[in-house]
Amino acid sequence: MNTFGESVKITVFGESHGAALGVVLDGAEAGFVLDFEHIARELARRAPGTSELATPRREADSPEFLSGILNGVTTGAPICAIIRNSDTRSRDYTPNTPRPSHTDLTAHLKYHGFSDYRGGGHFSGRLTAAFVLVGAICKQMLERSGIGVTARIIQVGNAHGDTLDEAMRGEIRSAKAAGDSVGAVIECVATGVPGGIGGLMFGGMESRMAAMLYAVPGVKGVEFGAGFALAAMRGSTANDPIRADNGRIYTETNHAGGLNGGITNGMPIVARVALRPTPSIASPQKTVDLETGDNITMTVAGRHDPCLAPRALPVIEACLAFCILDAVKG
Amino acid sequence: MNTFGESVKITVFGESHGAALGVVLDGAEAGFVLDFEHIARELARRAPGTSELATPRREADSPEFLSGILNGVTTGAPICAIIRNSDTRSRDYTPNTPRPSHTDLTAHLKYHGFSDYRGGGHFSGRLTAAFVLVGAICKQMLERSGIGVTARIIQVGNAHGDTLDEAMRGEIRSAKAAGDSVGAVIECVATGVPGGIGGLMFGGMESRMAAMLYAVPGVKGVEFGAGFALAAMRGSTANDPIRADNGRIYTETNHAGGLNGGITNGMPIVARVALRPTPSIASPQKTVDLETGDNITMTVAGRHDPCLAPRALPVIEACLAFCILDAVKG
Amino acid sequence: MNTFGESVKITVFGESHGAALGVVLDGAEAGFVLDFEHIARELARRAPGTSELATPRREADSPEFLSGILNGVTTGAPICAIIRNSDTRSRDYTPNTPRPSHTDLTAHLKYHGFSDYRGGGHFSGRLTAAFVLVGAICKQMLERSGIGVTARIIQVGNAHGDTLDEAMRGEIRSAKAAGDSVGAVIECVATGVPGGIGGLMFGGMESRMAAMLYAVPGVKGVEFGAGFALAAMRGSTANDPIRADNGRIYTETNHAGGLNGGITNGMPIVARVALRPTPSIASPQKTVDLETGDNITMTVAGRHDPCLAPRALPVIEACLAFCILDAVKG
Amino acid sequence: MNTFGESVKITVFGESHGAALGVVLDGAEAGFVLDFEHIARELARRAPGTSELATPRREADSPEFLSGILNGVTTGAPICAIIRNSDTRSRDYTPNTPRPSHTDLTAHLKYHGFSDYRGGGHFSGRLTAAFVLVGAICKQMLERSGIGVTARIIQVGNAHGDTLDEAMRGEIRSAKAAGDSVGAVIECVATGVPGGIGGLMFGGMESRMAAMLYAVPGVKGVEFGAGFALAAMRGSTANDPIRADNGRIYTETNHAGGLNGGITNGMPIVARVALRPTPSIASPQKTVDLETGDNITMTVAGRHDPCLAPRALPVIEACLAFCILDAVKG
Repeated sequence: MNTFGESVKITVFGESHGAALGVVLDGAEAGFVLDFEHIARELARRAPGTSELATPRREADSPEFLSGILNGVTTGAPICAIIRNSDTRSRDYTPNTPRPSHTDLTAHLKYHGFSDYRGGGHFSGRLTAAFVLVGAICKQMLERSGIGVTARIIQVGNAHGDTLDEAMRGEIRSAKAAGDSVGAVIECVATGVPGGIGGLMFGGMESRMAAMLYAVPGVKGVEFGAGFALAAMRGSTANDPIRADNGRIYTETNHAGGLNGGITNGMPIVARVALRPTPSIASPQKTVDLETGDNITMTVAGRHDPCLAPRALPVIEACLAFCILDAVKG
Repeated sequence: MNTFGESVKITVFGESHGAALGVVLDGAEAGFVLDFEHIARELARRAPGTSELATPRREADSPEFLSGILNGVTTGAPICAIIRNSDTRSRDYTPNTPRPSHTDLTAHLKYHGFSDYRGGGHFSGRLTAAFVLVGAICKQMLERSGIGVTARIIQVGNAHGDTLDEAMRGEIRSAKAAGDSVGAVIECVATGVPGGIGGLMFGGMESRMAAMLYAVPGVKGVEFGAGFALAAMRGSTANDPIRADNGRIYTETNHAGGLNGGITNGMPIVARVALRPTPSIASPQKTVDLETGDNITMTVAGRHDPCLAPRALPVIEACLAFCILDAVKG
Repeated sequence: MNTFGESVKITVFGESHGAALGVVLDGAEAGFVLDFEHIARELARRAPGTSELATPRREADSPEFLSGILNGVTTGAPICAIIRNSDTRSRDYTPNTPRPSHTDLTAHLKYHGFSDYRGGGHFSGRLTAAFVLVGAICKQMLERSGIGVTARIIQVGNAHGDTLDEAMRGEIRSAKAAGDSVGAVIECVATGVPGGIGGLMFGGMESRMAAMLYAVPGVKGVEFGAGFALAAMRGSTANDPIRADNGRIYTETNHAGGLNGGITNGMPIVARVALRPTPSIASPQKTVDLETGDNITMTVAGRHDPCLAPRALPVIEACLAFCILDAVKG
Repeated sequence: MNTFGESVKITVFGESHGAALGVVLDGAEAGFVLDFEHIARELARRAPGTSELATPRREADSPEFLSGILNGVTTGAPICAIIRNSDTRSRDYTPNTPRPSHTDLTAHLKYHGFSDYRGGGHFSGRLTAAFVLVGAICKQMLERSGIGVTARIIQVGNAHGDTLDEAMRGEIRSAKAAGDSVGAVIECVATGVPGGIGGLMFGGMESRMAAMLYAVPGVKGVEFGAGFALAAMRGSTANDPIRADNGRIYTETNHAGGLNGGITNGMPIVARVALRPTPSIASPQKTVDLETGDNITMTVAGRHDPCLAPRALPVIEACLAFCILDAVKG
């Protein structure tokens, strides 16, 4: 379903090539003065056409706020914001030839041919603009409590690093030049989150954050702290020694990524997300004609990002920011 | 929160050293003839004391069914089953010295010192018996539709393989001999799941399965299909070519792990889970006395598994089985 | 919260004097051909300014569909529709003098003065346009299964009858002439609902329908079947004798209103709703100046319906239609 | 579904003639010292066999607490309590002759003959013991904030009054003597609830309370404040004048029952509930043999209350207490 959250809830709607996409944010506090410039800046971070590393497709990601705000201040009622679609080339899409590793086939199966196939429809990455919009509001609200959420790219293809450096950029440029695409890993860190936050069992922070992160198109892996690297460790190394310093309790290492049993321990929350290569590539690919049942070869038209990661940074941040705000409030 | 699911819901309760643990399964179909022997066998897979690789602690994991069943057949009303606790050594636990990388500290922070600290209380891995119990029922229901769910261990420490072989066993034995513990990776595959199953956005299969998997103590990473390995791939390799064979649509590779946009595509669902090393180890560890605030050294008493993976297999299967049953029914 | 439903969910947003109100309908089937003329007719039934019995205030209740529909057919993705506001006289409202029996005071208390006070803001009866819009879609979907939902006014003030007759109209005209308002009872009947529909316990049809009906401004009583009249009955009269006629099972009377234990029994569902008199009246009323704390007298300006019932008919129908569609699908 | 609540959740399970009934209370605060004697007293109020007005059937309503409590203090983990069944006469029930106005027929339709038909199974009024148990805990928690919840009987048959007086008792005795049963109205008042409590739209207090009240077997009407009597009133009478007295804001009348738009206004919450006559009566009744399809006459065996109201008082209080605690915490 398209509604998510406990104390605070979001409901996302829209399609890539429909009239608009949007989001309803319900349960956020009243009396909060929104910084609309900040929201615009965050949307710009996700917007296409802003870098050589991204698609030249232009999207006017300018939100219209329909409810929940009076004179720039939240009223406590649900906030609905929409972003109109424009510059869409629906002619680039055909309903009967599912693009490999896209949702065309699964949407077709689920909705018996009635799904909106244009540009991925409701499954399009374009809907992550709604995440970013909500994430910007959440980050503003968290900032007052000294909580910050920041994501960076730490791997592109075979290049690893601390942030998107020249080697990683090279991987993207090289994939683009080859009419191909490349995968990546994003690491997102939330600092300043107090200890003792998070629900029990299925309401743990890892469960919530993973559920939201896996709603982002292209995410195929989510880990916290040392994550999969813990499989190769021994407990004597992996355990985070607990220390106290003038009443402040902390751990000497942070292999747990700030979370034990789904509850925050006061250390930075560290999440890492694997993004698959953009499924739209220039080379011809094998697929099926759903009408005739024939095996055919297709070429995906349209303009596409060679790597999902650069524009996904504020999306990943939004997932953590929303889940933390929800849990802090709950 | 301790309730999870959409069309079918589970509610888990209990503590490691309390009177009992249990689960309520709500929304399952009426008229299903349960195989109680199968449930017992599944619980035995998770039970301790059954192998040299596991703790010698004995738990009588014998469930009592309190509701929802008449003459061995489900009635449609919620099924409650409980498992009594016994053979608990509560004297092994002290409330004021949080064991590193356990939930002692976070539970203390969240519940201001009132949480049940004995053996991890509600956060104990012992509650996964409730998962296994539900998982057994779900697997029985799925089996009629030809859906099977099977997990195996593919990594322990530095040993990788197709299933728990001698090299991996050696890693466990070696960690145990050293009074230490070791991490692992479990791969779980669901076959026979039809295409078109799963909800939109936050209701996608990956979101649901990850949310439940992260409720399992010790899980710090979850990936689907090629997962984190996709970060190093190019789209031309990562994309799964679509083919048709006499009306059956399939993909030549399965880097997506059977899921595009959270919806099943008919290929096997492949999930991989990273388990941290058991946090309880024999060597002395640094921690804090929560009463005095002093930095101290503690030694965790009690009997513990050197590796979480062997007993976790039916738990991981339960997560996939429950989520698939819920989605198929929804 | 502003989200409601199990298998199908609605999320309502907007304010009386904001940019727009709207609704997201999530989980409705794909491939349904919507009748937009019917939606417009239903909205017209609720629209003001259409009768001497209603306020002359004009609202252009023309919906814009933003998502979930392609070429007039549902896609399975969430349907968002908005209705822009216009002809609002915000100057008629002041933030610091709560109108008696409105939500001005409670919204002020809940949101510490930050709620949108103009025309009731998010609490305004205007938001029931969103209910009607959703109700129209649900009625279209139910109609295929032979399910019909119809409401009529059976009491206004002291006049009782089978539908809005001259005596009841007289009560409204008389109240209007006196600058006053008057209460009413609406009865809503759903026919063609098959037996065995509805969830257990809190998911029973009465629980769901009552929860939605009480979200309609002005509703202060909800009863099913013989309702409060059952308190004066004996079991020998109140019990509905069960009969079979060529395999069709029915009851000779319908004091249960088609529902036993929250589950449909195949007889018509009968719900009755008490609507309080419109709180906005022309005469001066006692209230408090929230800024000074003084007891004052205020006169409510603006144009208001003397009776809520005539325009509420499609709103009440929408509540039953939505809950029935949700339960049938679940 | 059998789970209810927002910030605090209950999950109810069990059958009349199964092993046990029970409830899981999730989300209640940690560190609360429970008064088990009070819980027992509350259960005794609902227990049968305690008065000439109730069935002589004996039920040992002695709860066993399985989780969530350590040394009599809540831990924050879910509290599960069960009540074992005993003294059940299952031979009194037959699966194929649905008792009129019971759930036998609807349960049969919903579960295709697999529901537990003995004594109403999961639909039995016996499950309200779980409500009372939870209600007792909620009342204890609310009491610290000065919130009290009290119900009384104000109508039985044709006798009306302020509480269960001789005239009303006469109605019950007379129905009992005739082998018949009689309906009633219960009024429940919550005092001390602060203003500004309750959610928006479907989360309003009336929606929540009505949803829970309608889960109580036999409830067919729910009204708040003046309720259905408002239909006969004019606004000038129905409106509650707002006054301030030394900073305390109150209303001169309370026709709204303490609630405007689903939010508390600080006045007492007043709910009224119509209970149908007990469907089990001694006289022969018309029904159908579900196996043969024949119209037959049956006589309901077993021992039954002539009026549901006396034992229902703590059940109705539990509904209000739970919903208020949930909303205050949310």
